[in-house]
Amino acid sequence: MLITRGNVACRLWLHFSAVYIITGVACYLLYYEYRYISDKRLEYFMTSKPLPQYFTVLVRAIPITDGGSVSDAVDKFFKEYHSSTYLSHTVVHQTGKLRRLLNETEIMWRKLKNLKYVPHRPSTDNPPKKFLGLFGRNNPGKYQKRLEDLEENVRMEQSDATRRREIPAAFVSFKSRYASANAIYIRQSDNPTEWQTEHAPDPHDVYWPSFSTSFMERWISKFVVFVASVLLIIVFLLVVGFIQGLTYMDQLEAWLPFLRNILEIAIVSQLVTGYLPSVILHFLSSYVPSIMKLFSTMQGFVSVNGIERSACNKMLRFTIWTVFFANVLTGSVLNQLNIFLDPKEIPERLAVVVPAQASFFIAYVVTSWTSITSELTQTSALLYHLWGSCAKCCKREDSEAPSMHYHSEIPRILLFGLLGLTYSIVAPLILPFVLTYFCLGYFIFRNQLCNVYAPKYDTGGRFWPIVHNATIFSLVLMHLISIGIFGVKEFPFGSSLLVPLPILTLLFHAYCGNRFYPIFEAYSTESLINKDIQEQSKPEMAEFFSSLETAYCDPALKPIQRSLNSDERTAPLLSSV
Amino acid sequence: MLITRGNVACRLWLHFSAVYIITGVACYLLYYEYRYISDKRLEYFMTSKPLPQYFTVLVRAIPITDGGSVSDAVDKFFKEYHSSTYLSHTVVHQTGKLRRLLNETEIMWRKLKNLKYVPHRPSTDNPPKKFLGLFGRNNPGKYQKRLEDLEENVRMEQSDATRRREIPAAFVSFKSRYASANAIYIRQSDNPTEWQTEHAPDPHDVYWPSFSTSFMERWISKFVVFVASVLLIIVFLLVVGFIQGLTYMDQLEAWLPFLRNILEIAIVSQLVTGYLPSVILHFLSSYVPSIMKLFSTMQGFVSVNGIERSACNKMLRFTIWTVFFANVLTGSVLNQLNIFLDPKEIPERLAVVVPAQASFFIAYVVTSWTSITSELTQTSALLYHLWGSCAKCCKREDSEAPSMHYHSEIPRILLFGLLGLTYSIVAPLILPFVLTYFCLGYFIFRNQLCNVYAPKYDTGGRFWPIVHNATIFSLVLMHLISIGIFGVKEFPFGSSLLVPLPILTLLFHAYCGNRFYPIFEAYSTESLINKDIQEQSKPEMAEFFSSLETAYCDPALKPIQRSLNSDERTAPLLSSV
Repeated sequence: MLITRGNVACRLWLHFSAVYIITGVACYLLYYEYRYISDKRLEYFMTSKPLPQYFTVLVRAIPITDGGSVSDAVDKFFKEYHSSTYLSHTVVHQTGKLRRLLNETEIMWRKLKNLKYVPHRPSTDNPPKKFLGLFGRNNPGKYQKRLEDLEENVRMEQSDATRRREIPAAFVSFKSRYASANAIYIRQSDNPTEWQTEHAPDPHDVYWPSFSTSFMERWISKFVVFVASVLLIIVFLLVVGFIQGLTYMDQLEAWLPFLRNILEIAIVSQLVTGYLPSVILHFLSSYVPSIMKLFSTMQGFVSVNGIERSACNKMLRFTIWTVFFANVLTGSVLNQLNIFLDPKEIPERLAVVVPAQASFFIAYVVTSWTSITSELTQTSALLYHLWGSCAKCCKREDSEAPSMHYHSEIPRILLFGLLGLTYSIVAPLILPFVLTYFCLGYFIFRNQLCNVYAPKYDTGGRFWPIVHNATIFSLVLMHLISIGIFGVKEFPFGSSLLVPLPILTLLFHAYCGNRFYPIFEAYSTESLINKDIQEQSKPEMAEFFSSLETAYCDPALKPIQRSLNSDERTAPLLSSV
Repeated sequence: MLITRGNVACRLWLHFSAVYIITGVACYLLYYEYRYISDKRLEYFMTSKPLPQYFTVLVRAIPITDGGSVSDAVDKFFKEYHSSTYLSHTVVHQTGKLRRLLNETEIMWRKLKNLKYVPHRPSTDNPPKKFLGLFGRNNPGKYQKRLEDLEENVRMEQSDATRRREIPAAFVSFKSRYASANAIYIRQSDNPTEWQTEHAPDPHDVYWPSFSTSFMERWISKFVVFVASVLLIIVFLLVVGFIQGLTYMDQLEAWLPFLRNILEIAIVSQLVTGYLPSVILHFLSSYVPSIMKLFSTMQGFVSVNGIERSACNKMLRFTIWTVFFANVLTGSVLNQLNIFLDPKEIPERLAVVVPAQASFFIAYVVTSWTSITSELTQTSALLYHLWGSCAKCCKREDSEAPSMHYHSEIPRILLFGLLGLTYSIVAPLILPFVLTYFCLGYFIFRNQLCNVYAPKYDTGGRFWPIVHNATIFSLVLMHLISIGIFGVKEFPFGSSLLVPLPILTLLFHAYCGNRFYPIFEAYSTESLINKDIQEQSKPEMAEFFSSLETAYCDPALKPIQRSLNSDERTAPLLSSV
């Protein structure tokens, strides 16, 4: 008895020290990684060529006096308050209608292009092949007419500047990086809701439809989106609960008695209980990243990278709740949510429910190996391409390389970090599986990023703070579970000795926030002025400044130039007809 | 039965609409008051004469290279990155020892002065009167010698610049307000923990001892102070619980059986149960503002107004917890605290306990009338003065007008706002009493501020956001209590209809935060540049800039000049002895 007790105590002390060691190592690695990435970010800035976004400020909520135009107001304001550094500005216009027209033109042009260049078609005498006898019954002449009409409309709309409503937003360019930083970080107007300034995004990364919203709309939509994303998690949890019910045949028969006859067939019942739930879940969750991105779009971010970073945060919360907590708190999910309403009980309750799901999560990690290798084969892209080849009318531009969906990939990878850290104490068996996942992931994503995906935007490492925060959350969750476990195992001394650990971890987090996070938010006077001085005398700056004036021109206002991009720039589009 | 039910429902609807109306009116008034005060603040800035704090930035965490001085580092950095606007700087020195010496000199000088000018003493042949035969046995010659020694020490310490350690902090002055704002709002260094800049306080308002602390110390002390102020509230609640126990004689006898004989004397028992608890409570709570101010001082604020604003926030939390919640949750205080651990139950529990204490709080408001009128008579100042006159050695400088203790007065007044709002629904009888308190308070404080107190610093209305936030808190608390009451009275429809109200109030709060709060944090480019331009050509600016160079000189380093302030500037201090 004594020996057993001693053994148990010894093992508990081992677990106890493991918690401290793992936390220490994790914090050490986090610190050095944060430092490394922030150094990289500074280096990236110092070695970058002059980019429009560093010289430009996005001004919103521009107040207009009666009869005046936005452009005049901007010019007057910046000539008055930034006389020595102000360069030029571009007012944003309402181009929703034009964008719709351009979209239609684009679709029409694609259809025509596909009609003309169908591979393996020796002559145009053969009519285009029909897919399943449904598509392809196309009359090129009709399309050509329609395209010409649309292009004429677009040209008219583009040339008629009087009909375009000005939006009270403008891109204002300055003569130096430091001057633009001045305009961003010092409030411009006495009324804080007017002349709001923010960093301008990369011109190619601007999300133009966002500009139509007013300050009040953005502000309310932020709140609405927050509520909607919480609701989405709750609805998804309910759906998961329902689908998990599918695995119990008798429950299903009780719910849907009229299906009893069908369900009694062996193969149907196997399909329903075995495959159906996971198929439905996979199907549903594949739509969530797009929904989250839509939510972030509604919040009025003006850049695609802002939208994706915000969507990444939302997806992270979603993944942690619907995968981790939903599975940990199995059974009636919503009843179990009560444990979060009783803060004192959380560690002990987690200590009971988390270890119980260890084997499920090990299986989850193993099955995820396939999902990460499917990234390599790009199955969905392949299917999409095949479908596009068959139904030619829908085929997209093939020459464009896809971009990485950071907002769906990062949260997925972080989930495995969470699983690895929280189960490292209660079920260390999970670690080799998680490690294998990360090794696979490293090589696969390295390959994909180098050879498959083309980056659409460059945030200069601004996704890292999300990773850091998620890891800190995982560590604190691990501490809570460990405190609970020592409580359950009647080792209150260890439990109390662990209490400082989450506090220390959060202090470390706050320190990193002070030490590194500002670097990801803004560049310093030191960097800005050094970079400005370094480029001052370069001859190419004059050319850059002249290009700056047109850098933030809405692409919807540029003349249609697509034929220049294809190889057949001289041939008329339907010459062969 | 039907009529009664209808009556009850009708009265509940009346209450229901009262909640909406009160909230609406309160928010309307809050909005207009916030707007009025922010307009006043802008006006104050635009009409102010050039003040050193607008042109100066406090730089902390200055990194020093081996062998270099702080002064050189500052000069090099600002000449490099702010070459066109940088004016001068003053490095802060370690003057703790000097400050102690000066303090001793000051005390010694006061003693001597009191010895010399005792009123109603016809000639110096009579020895000074002794107070209670204890004080006044003073030998002026000895004091004179000691004072001269001390002054010699001070002079030596002041002249020996090599022995003073430089602190890595400096006041850096710029040529314009806008330039100093640039240095504050744009991070200076690539390492966010170095070259930290903040608003410089008014030179007379600088709290010099704060400078000795490092970034890490300030950062840790913030956390420590937070824990300490929470602990203080808990300890105070325990003490209140114990003291409330004193009112029950039998409990006291059970606790302290050896006192039974004494306690059985009628007058002692009356004293103990009747007066003692409130005397102890008043005595203890009179020390709390000083403790909170001490806590805020430890947090490393560099200005007295920063310290007092922070102490005001701490006192507000303290007052709400120890007066409002402690009395509402009477009985075993700590057991009742459990209701905050179960968020769903809060409204219903509050709905039960809050109305039960209505009569107590009405009595509390009425007794507070005396405390506010004692403000008029300045009883404590009078007692202090009398004590000082008797024991002459301790008498302070009488010519100095006292300053208002905002950090103890504002929370007290806000408590009555909280009581008025929370009880306006459950016990409207409290309203005339609260109104009387506010009317009395208005006239008394108006008089005191105009005729008695001398302002020590000017924050430009920066205490207002505290009042606004506290009122919003009171409104939301009122909503929670109302929701609970409608739940308890079985009027769930009203309860549900009230749920949007706290959300709307918080949205209103967030809107005010966006619309007005930035004005209290910083001035805008518009104001700064307009003010700079307005003063550009004034001839007195040259003189101001030259005075700016010495504005932030540590008062401990200035030569002792006190004899110039008194009437007898030419007479030697002890000529009559």
